[in-house]
Amino acid sequence: MFNQLGVIGCGLMGGSFALALKKAGLVKRVVGYSKSPSTTEMAKRLGVIDVAAESALLAVSGSDIVLLAVPVSATESTLKAIRHMVNPNVLVMDVGSTKGDVVSAAKRALGKHIDAFVPAHPITGKESGGVQNADATLYADCQVILTPLPQTNASLVQRATDVWSALGARVLKMTPENHDAAFAAVSHLPHLLAFAYFQSVAAQPAGRDYLSLAGPGFRDFTRIAASEPSVWRDILMANKAEVLIQSQRFRQALDAIEALLKDDDASGLEARIRLISEARAQWQLPAPRQPK
Amino acid sequence: MFNQLGVIGCGLMGGSFALALKKAGLVKRVVGYSKSPSTTEMAKRLGVIDVAAESALLAVSGSDIVLLAVPVSATESTLKAIRHMVNPNVLVMDVGSTKGDVVSAAKRALGKHIDAFVPAHPITGKESGGVQNADATLYADCQVILTPLPQTNASLVQRATDVWSALGARVLKMTPENHDAAFAAVSHLPHLLAFAYFQSVAAQPAGRDYLSLAGPGFRDFTRIAASEPSVWRDILMANKAEVLIQSQRFRQALDAIEALLKDDDASGLEARIRLISEARAQWQLPAPRQPK
Repeated sequence: MFNQLGVIGCGLMGGSFALALKKAGLVKRVVGYSKSPSTTEMAKRLGVIDVAAESALLAVSGSDIVLLAVPVSATESTLKAIRHMVNPNVLVMDVGSTKGDVVSAAKRALGKHIDAFVPAHPITGKESGGVQNADATLYADCQVILTPLPQTNASLVQRATDVWSALGARVLKMTPENHDAAFAAVSHLPHLLAFAYFQSVAAQPAGRDYLSLAGPGFRDFTRIAASEPSVWRDILMANKAEVLIQSQRFRQALDAIEALLKDDDASGLEARIRLISEARAQWQLPAPRQPK
Repeated sequence: MFNQLGVIGCGLMGGSFALALKKAGLVKRVVGYSKSPSTTEMAKRLGVIDVAAESALLAVSGSDIVLLAVPVSATESTLKAIRHMVNPNVLVMDVGSTKGDVVSAAKRALGKHIDAFVPAHPITGKESGGVQNADATLYADCQVILTPLPQTNASLVQRATDVWSALGARVLKMTPENHDAAFAAVSHLPHLLAFAYFQSVAAQPAGRDYLSLAGPGFRDFTRIAASEPSVWRDILMANKAEVLIQSQRFRQALDAIEALLKDDDASGLEARIRLISEARAQWQLPAPRQPK
């Protein structure tokens, strides 16, 4: 049980965390701050936060748990703004989709107080962001990756694990480097491909007609192409090296399948697709946690 | 109202058409044939067809409407097997996802009786095929593309339009060439990309770990990678030229976005993603038809 949650960035992720903690009875009071005063006001009006703070530092003041839910490019400036209140009595976490850059930013902003920061990445989201879409169940049944450093305070890592678990999430730990390599493969590259694919169809002369013929397969394949531009600018920039490595692997796989096509190797093509199709049919989203 | 439907290929598409026609009260009797006797038997046992025929020709005998729902590569041999019963008193359609190759096969198989064949492509499907997944509502609210030739019998085209409309589908007409160019863009290329992407992730050394971390975005992006191998072998082979043209366009779009990344052009990248994201957010599946 926490006394006060400070949310910095009252959007979908921060707002949902506030609602989830309240619903679970894990916090007495929520103080929120967003860069845009109208967002903070809306969060208060919607009951997502109890008190609107006028700065990030004021949102942290008196809080024993703090969630940074800002674009990853704003991590360093936000941590700098609150660094005088970062200490092992306060659990400070982020929700960024990249971790190497967040850890670097935290080292620059916090210096030796980096031990009080627990980097976190909940694997969840919605197509539509904003506090108006905040949802107390957003974190139920999702995975949350924590990427603590060797120097991270172990009891804070345990508290982070406990709070995410209490919201229904499954918690995994890995290094920032392994995290970024994995998510370049399973999340960042698919976004890049979906952006490029949608543009390649839409920008051609008959693009408008073609789009009017598209069906459910197209809908699902391109759903992530509607993702938030500033968020994905940051993610792709921050994880550029790993994303480009994964793109290279993808291009090799595409070349190999196209070579079968060009060679009219129908049985080779079918065998290749069969392996892929069976593997994908077996794959499933990580199972929900067992009820306690 | 038809007296008898002959279904050749009692799988998901053929079986669903039979169920839909029955449910709409548009047919008195359904005779079915599949290459595999066990499939035909199962279709009969499930009540999808009334009579199991022992050949494609016997399924057509006495039918005034015939649906070919076989892999596109089997179109020519199937039409050859039934050609003696193809005439303007019988509405014969297929459901193939490519049309140029189907029309060529029909010309070879039917000669001057090509006028009695109405090529059709319903834009619908399910991840799981087979007659056990046949569904009377599969064609409700989908689009159906007809690609008649100049010589196609006009009253058969009208009857085809009427029957699909009666099942709740919206009917469009276009040339086989335009059809294949459009569906290379909005359907065939995304399948190729999803196959290549899934393989590139699964085949790398840490692939198994990576797949265990994937979330809902990955699930939707790769859903079509689980598609039926023999169907997609045929489609990609049959529409190879158009698919490779679309792949080339896609690679150019991917190169352009990666160039922004490599140049650290964050604002250029954000602007590009914003255009795409807004266009995709505005796109929607063709609206359901107005109720009559």
